[in-house]
Amino acid sequence: MTTVETTGDEGMYLFNDLPLKELKSKYDFEPTERWADELRLSSVRFNSGGSGSFISSDGLVLTNHHVASDTLHKLSSADRNLIDDGFLATSLDEELQAPDLELNQLVSIEDVTSRVAEGIEKNASPAEAAQQRRAVIATIEQESLEKTGLRSDVVTLFGGATYHLYRYKKYTDVRLVWAPETAAAFFGGDADNFEYPRYCMDATIMRVYEDGKPAQLEHFLRWNEAGVDEGDLVFVSGNPGRTQRIFTVAALKYLRDHRMPYVLDYLRRKEILMQQFGLDGVEATRRARDELFGIQNGRKAYTGMLAGLQDPNTIATKQRREDQLIAAIKADPELAGTESVFAEIAEIQTEKAKKLGESVTFRSRLYDLALTTVLRAAEDAKPNEQRLREFTDSGRESLVQDLLSEAPVYADLERVKLADELSRFVETRGGDDALVAKVLAGKSPRQRAAELVDGTELFDVAARKRYLDGDYAAVQSSADPIIQLALLLEDEYRQLRTHSEELDERERQAYAKLTQAVSKLQGNSGYPDATFTLRLAYGQVKTYTEDGEEIQPATDFAGAFEHESSHLGQTDFDLPESWNRHKDALDLSTQLNFVCTADIIGGNSGSPVVNRQGELVGLIFDGNIQSLTSDYLYTDQQARAVSVSGVGILHALRKIYGADALADSIGK
Amino acid sequence: MTTVETTGDEGMYLFNDLPLKELKSKYDFEPTERWADELRLSSVRFNSGGSGSFISSDGLVLTNHHVASDTLHKLSSADRNLIDDGFLATSLDEELQAPDLELNQLVSIEDVTSRVAEGIEKNASPAEAAQQRRAVIATIEQESLEKTGLRSDVVTLFGGATYHLYRYKKYTDVRLVWAPETAAAFFGGDADNFEYPRYCMDATIMRVYEDGKPAQLEHFLRWNEAGVDEGDLVFVSGNPGRTQRIFTVAALKYLRDHRMPYVLDYLRRKEILMQQFGLDGVEATRRARDELFGIQNGRKAYTGMLAGLQDPNTIATKQRREDQLIAAIKADPELAGTESVFAEIAEIQTEKAKKLGESVTFRSRLYDLALTTVLRAAEDAKPNEQRLREFTDSGRESLVQDLLSEAPVYADLERVKLADELSRFVETRGGDDALVAKVLAGKSPRQRAAELVDGTELFDVAARKRYLDGDYAAVQSSADPIIQLALLLEDEYRQLRTHSEELDERERQAYAKLTQAVSKLQGNSGYPDATFTLRLAYGQVKTYTEDGEEIQPATDFAGAFEHESSHLGQTDFDLPESWNRHKDALDLSTQLNFVCTADIIGGNSGSPVVNRQGELVGLIFDGNIQSLTSDYLYTDQQARAVSVSGVGILHALRKIYGADALADSIGK
Repeated sequence: MTTVETTGDEGMYLFNDLPLKELKSKYDFEPTERWADELRLSSVRFNSGGSGSFISSDGLVLTNHHVASDTLHKLSSADRNLIDDGFLATSLDEELQAPDLELNQLVSIEDVTSRVAEGIEKNASPAEAAQQRRAVIATIEQESLEKTGLRSDVVTLFGGATYHLYRYKKYTDVRLVWAPETAAAFFGGDADNFEYPRYCMDATIMRVYEDGKPAQLEHFLRWNEAGVDEGDLVFVSGNPGRTQRIFTVAALKYLRDHRMPYVLDYLRRKEILMQQFGLDGVEATRRARDELFGIQNGRKAYTGMLAGLQDPNTIATKQRREDQLIAAIKADPELAGTESVFAEIAEIQTEKAKKLGESVTFRSRLYDLALTTVLRAAEDAKPNEQRLREFTDSGRESLVQDLLSEAPVYADLERVKLADELSRFVETRGGDDALVAKVLAGKSPRQRAAELVDGTELFDVAARKRYLDGDYAAVQSSADPIIQLALLLEDEYRQLRTHSEELDERERQAYAKLTQAVSKLQGNSGYPDATFTLRLAYGQVKTYTEDGEEIQPATDFAGAFEHESSHLGQTDFDLPESWNRHKDALDLSTQLNFVCTADIIGGNSGSPVVNRQGELVGLIFDGNIQSLTSDYLYTDQQARAVSVSGVGILHALRKIYGADALADSIGK
Repeated sequence: MTTVETTGDEGMYLFNDLPLKELKSKYDFEPTERWADELRLSSVRFNSGGSGSFISSDGLVLTNHHVASDTLHKLSSADRNLIDDGFLATSLDEELQAPDLELNQLVSIEDVTSRVAEGIEKNASPAEAAQQRRAVIATIEQESLEKTGLRSDVVTLFGGATYHLYRYKKYTDVRLVWAPETAAAFFGGDADNFEYPRYCMDATIMRVYEDGKPAQLEHFLRWNEAGVDEGDLVFVSGNPGRTQRIFTVAALKYLRDHRMPYVLDYLRRKEILMQQFGLDGVEATRRARDELFGIQNGRKAYTGMLAGLQDPNTIATKQRREDQLIAAIKADPELAGTESVFAEIAEIQTEKAKKLGESVTFRSRLYDLALTTVLRAAEDAKPNEQRLREFTDSGRESLVQDLLSEAPVYADLERVKLADELSRFVETRGGDDALVAKVLAGKSPRQRAAELVDGTELFDVAARKRYLDGDYAAVQSSADPIIQLALLLEDEYRQLRTHSEELDERERQAYAKLTQAVSKLQGNSGYPDATFTLRLAYGQVKTYTEDGEEIQPATDFAGAFEHESSHLGQTDFDLPESWNRHKDALDLSTQLNFVCTADIIGGNSGSPVVNRQGELVGLIFDGNIQSLTSDYLYTDQQARAVSVSGVGILHALRKIYGADALADSIGK
């Protein structure tokens, strides 16, 4: 499996297990411990899903515009459209505080595999093992939090063969410093998304604060001022979300024939829903925009992933590798019986296919708040180590930040989303289902959603706080219709979740066994599948060929203006007014975007790209369409990671956005 | 059931069985035979799916812009965009011939129920009965065609309790005379579709030709020049496509829980696909536009229909009526055993749910051509009465017109559509299916689609003609990859179709039995469910209340300009330049759109609306959102049919489009 059989620049490596041999042999590069520590400590993770980096001693953070867009959206209103218009704070007091952002800096890594293993009884059933594992993990996290004061997460690696304790320094006071217009950040729109060549200023700068003042940072990235060249070795430090490279053929077929078509139907449904909502007018468009962008991005990514899986050659390649592995396992007497994990995993996929879409949650902010309110109250009555994962003490601060976020909740949007979720619930279970009848309470999905949204107090942060301070009895006696709905569904929710976690546990155990076998057969190097934790990838700035044409690795500002004029009259192909106004002041040959072969995936958005000296040269914001299969199969034939060039960001700040002072403070 | 238990102005009546009693008692109106004949003979059906009317002695035909848009699209090119820009022929020789339009005028109706019944043996199985019925119908149609030279269709009514022979005069030389810009025809776009108040000039004028000259028409509609008033009695003569009012509760639940969610997933998928295709540029947008419009229209209609079915009150109402009917059946000794049809129909729904989505056809023009080419050659080797319905002699002229249409087929659009259909095929059957493997031939859906589109000759009308002139052996020896694909799938296609037709036959028999029982219990008046044949509906121009607000029945040109200015900056809310240029010349108080309570459904688009005098007062183009449940349940509480006002059309022709001569010839 991919834990060793890597090709090209494949790999998302743990910072405590870097591919030193490969880097030395392929690129004659030996990272020092200091080099790696500086890069790790300059990297941050966004709780909203994405990566970033510290870029100055006074707390500046660089990430993508599309990672920040959740915050830009929450900070916007009918009168202040940060998404369309961009933003620049010209002094500290103009910086805008994000309502619920949390940034994590990875401070240390500790292997706790044996302690987790000791917490599980030898002959525990999968359900018992899951429960015991949860308990020991909660205890480890809680002890670490008490000891260090740091956010402490136990991370499952190699499909459950390894457990590491990650300690993070948290930043929860994060403020917006600069964002360009979406027309510049997402130039080319949905049409250009996952395409290359690109010309996007997909960057935003924030600042972390401590005690109300800009955080003083010891570790941050210096910037390279020259741009990249073909062949340059570069490194990406970020938090890839999830890969599935260890997946067996049966698991990939489940994705191909069940999960991905299901998710795509779901995404298309929500895309049309958000589009329709936006037809109501300019303000409605603004309210739906952030969610619509995320949905479209997901839809395009999944379409590419499914296309790869539907190519018979993909499965054939994976099958060949799997056959070889099974043969090797069978030939090794010490691994006798291990091949049964393939059948076990296949069986789990069949069960998953049957359960697909079984859910009693409704995706809307109000219902999320209601369910979290109910579960929080119920879970808090239990000892810490018996609680559901997201309600243990170590995660409390993050939970509270989310529950009490002042981010606006739009009644009209909630009504439409909830009505659609109720309608989907009727579709999934059938209109005659007893629970459906209880949920609808004799009304149509639309009427019921209106009733729930009109009747709830959960728009009000004070009301949420009241529940948070109260116990389960207080929640139970609530007259709030959406709280009552969450209570009605609580039992069913818990049953479904327990069943699904049992399946996950069985799968985890099977993959752990498989990973151990692979390690025994092929040695213990390599990297685990991505888990939204910090990884290091490496690669080269490199051209590639598409439809017979050689694609140059870098684009420049001149190309952006040409791209605009060759797409006249098309939506999303107008550069913002600011770019056209300052065109004459620009050095049009300045690098804007570039590609490299580093192994990235969703979650890497906003990752810094650094050179051998550890200097920032770019900012990951996308992968091309050929890279979308990298979820389950890395290739560097055409697949490329796409970055905004660091020099491009500095140039835009100085020449387009009048942000000289900000540009001057970067890297210092 | 609805065959008699009508409410308000419910009903889509047969022209040979008009609701004379109701009209007399409710509106004191007694249509003369001449009144009805004139209206029937002035009404036309479009083979592209829609209705229209003759409006002058020299062949002018009025229909909706959205009914004509299929033709407008086919007559457009990168250099001539009739959809965006509209069209006006200032002389006969400027009129543009539609590539494949057929208009049908209903000349006579003959009851052939007993002859059809005689053609079926007493103890025939459903499969045999279907075959025998097909044979006798083909014979009746063929005899009638030979005798009269008229298009002759046997129509199934009352769910199979009645068969009528409809004879049509066909017009196949149809030319475009006038079309407004889409910005005027579909003002408000998808947002306003199925909404009211509306301000749309959804009208287009064509002309039928015979022997290369404008047809001289004996029957055509005169126009009323005053507009309508609240309370006016009006009539709609058109071809409602399909209603399902006789459906049992089990059948409605199948729609609610299976068919409609399935169709909506399909439509949303195609909507996103066409949107994505359009992102490629202005010309791509133009190419995809007609199809995208149809998909969006369908998606919005189905969403409304499903919403109605998901309202527990809808099913409860239907259940109550069904319970009463069952009680009445059980109480009548002569109907002993008839109640078993409810169980039979329920069983059929279960089977249908199982088979949902089982299909081996790929929706693309090229694959349609290939499959039709293959089936035509195979069917022509059989005697006429044994052929599949669309390949009998009586339908040959229409078939040939479609196969040899010169309408453009766009390779890029076909490639994308076919790739998506192949991908959907993999999803439906699973990637491991043997037939899927054969269809993909080792390639990804995208590669395979490219190979099929690049390799086929079917773009070329001469190539299609060659196959049409040849036999099955000639088709079999074809090297055309898409013909080969259709051949590969022919057996499976026939099996699935046979099975589905058997199910339909069982259902038809059950509903026929049910209808007979209802007729016995409640008398034989009423109207059959819609079948895309000519019907008369009636109703009043009538206000209604929505969210506490009284909606006025008519809008005017002033309202259109106000609607534009209150939606500044929103897509599809800009009136065309021509309207703004001629605004000063307009009498802004002229009626533009109006609503009435007449019972219509899809297929009625383009229907003339006439007054007691038989004068045209309007042109049906939509129903409001509350009318969407009328597929299975009529109500006139809020549901309304929406028309363009006849006086509005004349005013626009004269004051906006400089078409005085055309306006002068209308009604004469």
